Amino acid sequence: MSRIAFIGLGIMGSPMAVNLVRAGHDVVGFNRSPEKTRALVEAGGRAADSVAEAVRDAEVVCVMVPDTPDVEAVVGGEDGVFAHAPDGTLLIDFSTIRPDVSAELAREAREHGLRPLDAPVSGGEKGAQEGTLSVMVGGEEADVEAARPVLEAVGRTVVHVGPSGSGQTVKAANQLIVAAHLEALAEAVVFLEAYQVKMSAALEVLGGGLAGSAVLAQKGQAMLDRSFTPGFRVELHDKDLGILTAAAREAGVVLPLGGMTAGLMASANAVGEGRLDHAALLLGLERLSGRGGLDR
Amino acid sequence: MSRIAFIGLGIMGSPMAVNLVRAGHDVVGFNRSPEKTRALVEAGGRAADSVAEAVRDAEVVCVMVPDTPDVEAVVGGEDGVFAHAPDGTLLIDFSTIRPDVSAELAREAREHGLRPLDAPVSGGEKGAQEGTLSVMVGGEEADVEAARPVLEAVGRTVVHVGPSGSGQTVKAANQLIVAAHLEALAEAVVFLEAYQVKMSAALEVLGGGLAGSAVLAQKGQAMLDRSFTPGFRVELHDKDLGILTAAAREAGVVLPLGGMTAGLMASANAVGEGRLDHAALLLGLERLSGRGGLDR
Amino acid sequence: MSRIAFIGLGIMGSPMAVNLVRAGHDVVGFNRSPEKTRALVEAGGRAADSVAEAVRDAEVVCVMVPDTPDVEAVVGGEDGVFAHAPDGTLLIDFSTIRPDVSAELAREAREHGLRPLDAPVSGGEKGAQEGTLSVMVGGEEADVEAARPVLEAVGRTVVHVGPSGSGQTVKAANQLIVAAHLEALAEAVVFLEAYQVKMSAALEVLGGGLAGSAVLAQKGQAMLDRSFTPGFRVELHDKDLGILTAAAREAGVVLPLGGMTAGLMASANAVGEGRLDHAALLLGLERLSGRGGLDR
Amino acid sequence: MSRIAFIGLGIMGSPMAVNLVRAGHDVVGFNRSPEKTRALVEAGGRAADSVAEAVRDAEVVCVMVPDTPDVEAVVGGEDGVFAHAPDGTLLIDFSTIRPDVSAELAREAREHGLRPLDAPVSGGEKGAQEGTLSVMVGGEEADVEAARPVLEAVGRTVVHVGPSGSGQTVKAANQLIVAAHLEALAEAVVFLEAYQVKMSAALEVLGGGLAGSAVLAQKGQAMLDRSFTPGFRVELHDKDLGILTAAAREAGVVLPLGGMTAGLMASANAVGEGRLDHAALLLGLERLSGRGGLDR
Repeated sequence: MSRIAFIGLGIMGSPMAVNLVRAGHDVVGFNRSPEKTRALVEAGGRAADSVAEAVRDAEVVCVMVPDTPDVEAVVGGEDGVFAHAPDGTLLIDFSTIRPDVSAELAREAREHGLRPLDAPVSGGEKGAQEGTLSVMVGGEEADVEAARPVLEAVGRTVVHVGPSGSGQTVKAANQLIVAAHLEALAEAVVFLEAYQVKMSAALEVLGGGLAGSAVLAQKGQAMLDRSFTPGFRVELHDKDLGILTAAAREAGVVLPLGGMTAGLMASANAVGEGRLDHAALLLGLERLSGRGGLDR
Repeated sequence: MSRIAFIGLGIMGSPMAVNLVRAGHDVVGFNRSPEKTRALVEAGGRAADSVAEAVRDAEVVCVMVPDTPDVEAVVGGEDGVFAHAPDGTLLIDFSTIRPDVSAELAREAREHGLRPLDAPVSGGEKGAQEGTLSVMVGGEEADVEAARPVLEAVGRTVVHVGPSGSGQTVKAANQLIVAAHLEALAEAVVFLEAYQVKMSAALEVLGGGLAGSAVLAQKGQAMLDRSFTPGFRVELHDKDLGILTAAAREAGVVLPLGGMTAGLMASANAVGEGRLDHAALLLGLERLSGRGGLDR
Repeated sequence: MSRIAFIGLGIMGSPMAVNLVRAGHDVVGFNRSPEKTRALVEAGGRAADSVAEAVRDAEVVCVMVPDTPDVEAVVGGEDGVFAHAPDGTLLIDFSTIRPDVSAELAREAREHGLRPLDAPVSGGEKGAQEGTLSVMVGGEEADVEAARPVLEAVGRTVVHVGPSGSGQTVKAANQLIVAAHLEALAEAVVFLEAYQVKMSAALEVLGGGLAGSAVLAQKGQAMLDRSFTPGFRVELHDKDLGILTAAAREAGVVLPLGGMTAGLMASANAVGEGRLDHAALLLGLERLSGRGGLDR
Repeated sequence: MSRIAFIGLGIMGSPMAVNLVRAGHDVVGFNRSPEKTRALVEAGGRAADSVAEAVRDAEVVCVMVPDTPDVEAVVGGEDGVFAHAPDGTLLIDFSTIRPDVSAELAREAREHGLRPLDAPVSGGEKGAQEGTLSVMVGGEEADVEAARPVLEAVGRTVVHVGPSGSGQTVKAANQLIVAAHLEALAEAVVFLEAYQVKMSAALEVLGGGLAGSAVLAQKGQAMLDRSFTPGFRVELHDKDLGILTAAAREAGVVLPLGGMTAGLMASANAVGEGRLDHAALLLGLERLSGRGGLDR
């Protein structure tokens, strides 16, 4: 049993914090909109009025907020984790942010006597609720081991991938692969529909061979149905691909397909489809080919 | 039990014909280089000296040759299937060729009293040997049902996807998806290596979530090892992507990622890597980023 | 003065034939829709009722038709040039067609005793009317010299670029460059408009430096005005880029920008903008960014 | 005659400062490596030991340094322009930097009582020496007019394109167009060489029509000769395209061709060709097609 502060109780953070309560931990949560603490409190956790109050007695601080500046605001500043968490506290950042910032924040965390881990997740809202997330962990080996009971309460696959920032780097690669798989599937669907192939049969046979993927299994039928309720939103995937392309540029790595897919996701966001599921890449493709559209 | 003629006993055709013998069929094979008939004969089949001789008494004719002109040569011409197969024979073309040619050959086959199916496969040499291919079948429903015992002797997933040519169309989509998955994985690998992430751990966690795919499971370690023994060769995948892009153009469908991936596969072929496994897309990516190369 | 048969009196062919009359030649024209011969006849030429009749006494046969199969129909067949033109006749094909077909037709023309040149042009309707076309000529040196008086009656820049087919190859490269310049300009315009830059001033300064081009000079203002009256139509440029990409694939040359631009032009055609000027590439770009559209 | 401080006397800044002396101005220069002041002093200017000393009595301050952080260092900080330039001084930044930073620095400059202009140039070393640069000016109309005598001493085309930052935005668009023209030309060259076309003749005819451009005129022969002495270096063009793609992303504008060209320039830089002329894009293209290489 650990005393855990959980900062950020949104769609992902709230069920993750609840799972930590269920695993027997003492969890105190903070969220900028205080009504979001309700599920945690109902599950047996407590609500704090500030980051400072939440982290003051914590052995573990978890952070799950939307973007790089949000993490910077939570850990730095007068009310922040760095100023108020006790020496030796594990600081687990589940957010998806820039790898270089993540590594820099880890350095600062250590200067403040903390033990930082970057631990972005994949698996979505469903994975958060069921505690089956994949967790990509960057940081010191000893800190990963110390945090393992907490990490395994929220995730099924918990893998230590390297030093601080590495978790974010692997998450960026994850988002590249997922986006490319979505776009490839969307192109296959539009192509096959143009030839009036029997689509369910086609997806079945494609899924059974080397073309099979989690994306095809989870998003194939939704594409056929043009059902784009999120799920994971285009606007967030767009943000993540911005992180990817910046990190690739920084490293001098050229990603032809990553760059193109990022452009197509940015287009989906720019045309006002940011709040749809990322499988909505299909809609942009239909526009490129003069298919589909308003009357579907 | 059917009397089956099998034309084309290469890397794929030979084990497929053997599996038909093992399933109890009477199989007579023909191959331009006659020494390739050996495995079939050893398994209990027979060898013919010409297409005409092979198909003369057949109830089912199977064709498995490399490219569109090869199929045209086998079915047309003086020695061909059209001229010599009995009325009502099932003509199953397992080759991967152009969908429009496939549909046209089916039309001609029917004029000659035959019952044509296009039935390209995925699953590679291993799938051919083990009889676990995925088979994408285009043609008349009744003909598919009549051919099912033969198709299920070579494949595990046999799906009827539409009228004649549809099997080829789905196969083209399959090759688009596989190529895109290979390229996405290669980009992820080069990106992560540049950041010195622990690669086996990274592939494990990527494979466990929405980024998971058959390509990652089957080709991930090979990419880390730069082990590009085929498998499926770049030059064949290049040919198939040429079929895809022509068919997409014909249908007025724009495939941004398909077009780019086809260009990268064409590049791999152009630089002399045509006989490597298609996972060798990774090498081109390393060249683009000034990484890797001869001395690895 | 030469006796010239001119086959194909469309938007380009008609003014070219008229210019040949004005240069003092004896021109007899043929067009499938006979009303198109009017301008030629009014200028002092004559109209024929068939290809055979037109070419029977010709010293020079000119062809200017839309696409590869049209040229094949004009030169081959019972009524064609090969069957009816006298020995030693110069056969100048001004059409834009596939280089490989052009080279093959040249071979056949020589077998029929003719002296073939491929001579595609650039400069558009205006260049055809004013006799200021650029002419890219493939064929034998001696034949080019013999044809020069005819070529210089329709064009200002007449350049011999290599053996038969070379004119078409250079024309394909021309269409690549022009399409890329249009797309680059369109991207610059959409980008600058998003930042509310003074657009006329911007085009002035861009045109004065290393970014200057004939495309910017001739199409810049039209893009600012969204004025897409052709000019040269998207559907024809799409056809030409299909020739380019096939020829590049044939030669094992990878054209990343050419491939992408061809995809964007194909998209413009697919969405129903085929009859607009090719500067309408701008519209697709606005769709990608969720800008512009119906209400402009 | 104005009292002018010129900060940054590199390949571009030095001849620009010299031209200001020749135009009759009193120019005092500063450069981090003091030996670079020599040409200015020989021309009749003076050298200062610090930014503060250079700008103390200036009516006009010119800045020409490599990148965004360099400009920030020159204008901010204890020794900077903001701290030491007199009230009402014109601050002309000729550097190519991020438009958003440029606009922000202009805001700060006004708070310090200065009159800022962003005035990036195109035309290269030759244009700087001959005083024939194109200058893209952002800022207040009155300030542009006040600065015009200075701007016209270094440039031939001086155009006011909008408020502060607009000059940088137009420069980013300029770099997009130039890069795309270079890549399109390189693709045309590699394609035509593969077909063994007569290259000089081909470039002549291409340059005479709608495919004509300043890039073709100035870089065509250099590409044929594989002569890549800069000129403008790949590494600088890569930096500029990073500015472009960031600014496009910021504005929600999707640039398919801009993004791809940026990727190819980044590749040229990554493989170690950063110090070659940007026409060296051709080399990457040859690698993609397995052509050319070390032994040329």
